[in-house]
Amino acid sequence: MFKQWDVGILLFNEVEVLDFAGPFEVFSITTYPESNIRPFKVTTVAQTKELITARNGLKVQPDYDFYDAPHFDILIIPGGYGAEEIEIHNQKVLNWISERMNTVDLMASICTGAFLLAKTGLLNGKKATTHWMDIERLEKEYPKVRVEHNVKYVDGGSIITSGGISAGINMSFYIVKKLLGEQVASYTAKRMEYDINI
Amino acid sequence: MFKQWDVGILLFNEVEVLDFAGPFEVFSITTYPESNIRPFKVTTVAQTKELITARNGLKVQPDYDFYDAPHFDILIIPGGYGAEEIEIHNQKVLNWISERMNTVDLMASICTGAFLLAKTGLLNGKKATTHWMDIERLEKEYPKVRVEHNVKYVDGGSIITSGGISAGINMSFYIVKKLLGEQVASYTAKRMEYDINI
Repeated sequence: MFKQWDVGILLFNEVEVLDFAGPFEVFSITTYPESNIRPFKVTTVAQTKELITARNGLKVQPDYDFYDAPHFDILIIPGGYGAEEIEIHNQKVLNWISERMNTVDLMASICTGAFLLAKTGLLNGKKATTHWMDIERLEKEYPKVRVEHNVKYVDGGSIITSGGISAGINMSFYIVKKLLGEQVASYTAKRMEYDINI
Repeated sequence: MFKQWDVGILLFNEVEVLDFAGPFEVFSITTYPESNIRPFKVTTVAQTKELITARNGLKVQPDYDFYDAPHFDILIIPGGYGAEEIEIHNQKVLNWISERMNTVDLMASICTGAFLLAKTGLLNGKKATTHWMDIERLEKEYPKVRVEHNVKYVDGGSIITSGGISAGINMSFYIVKKLLGEQVASYTAKRMEYDINI
C-alpha cells in the first residue's frame, strides 16, 4: 500500500558533516500524509565498519560496510575534503559506487561527491554540478561532464547532483517532491522549519 | 590575536540529527577573513562515552563524557524526542546543564532542547522559543517562560533559544554574526550555500 525506499548514505573519513546529515534529516523525518509511516528508511554505509571521523572531528559509526550492505533504492554520495582529496584516489570506493549504479533507482551526490561520480565516468555526457568553490576543477578535470553553474541541483535522471553543503538539503526536498508530491515535501519542510519554495 | 571559542554540543540518544549537525557545520567551517584560522573549536559531549543513537538511527560517538569534558565557552543543547521525552526526566543531565550555565559565556538551545533549559528553571522570566509543534506544551508546562511564537530564535543574552531543527542553523549564523560580524557570517553562509539574510 505504502511504497518504501531504502536510502543508503556513503560515509568516509573527512566527509563534510552537513553533506550527509542534511539529507539524513530530510529523508528520515518525511512521513506519508496524516500518518507516521515513513517512505524512506535511511542507513549509513562505509568501506569498513571502523568509526568514521567526519570533517572537523565529528565521529560517526556506519551501519554497514561494503560487504554486508543491503540493496539500496537511493544512494547518497556526500562530499567534503574526504571525497575530493582522499576517496577520489580509493579505487575500492569508486568500484563500489560503479557497481551500485547498476542496482539503485537513483544515485545522488552532494557537494564534491560529484567528483567521485565523475571519476567513475558515470557523469560522462551528463549534466552535473558541485560546490561553487570546486566547479572550475570539475570542468577542467572532467571535460566530458556538462557542468552547470549557479544551480542548487541538476536532475540527470538516474543521477542527481547538487551544489555545496546545504544544497544537499534542497536536493533532498526535490527528490521527496519528485517521488511523493508537493504536499509531502512541503510538510517535511514545515516540520524542519526549512525556508524553501517546494 | 585571534580569539577562539570552545563550542560543546550535548548529545543523547534520540537527539534530532540536524539539531546538532547544523550548528556543528556552521561553527566548524567558520574562518577568520582571508585566513584558515577557525574561531570555533567544536566538540561533542554526552553523559557517558557510549555510542549515541540519534533519532532515526544515526550513530555518533561523543568526544567527551560529563567527567572529562573541558571548559566550554558556548554550550549547544539540541532537541528531538530524546530531549523532550527522555532527558527531561534525567536529573544528571539537567544538573550538568545547570552547573555549566555558571561557566559558559553562552548557552544555546535548538528545537525542544529548550525544554531541558526550562526544566532546570534557567528560562524562568526569560524570553524563549522552541519548535512550533511543541510551543503550546512549553507555554503550558512552564508558565514562567515568556514564550515567543513565529521566530527563528530569541536572544535572551546569556541564553539563546531557537525554533525547530533548521532554525538551529539560523541561530548559529546569528551567533557568528554577533561575535565576529556580518562579513564572517556572510562568508560562512556563502560557503555553505545556505539561503539566509545575515
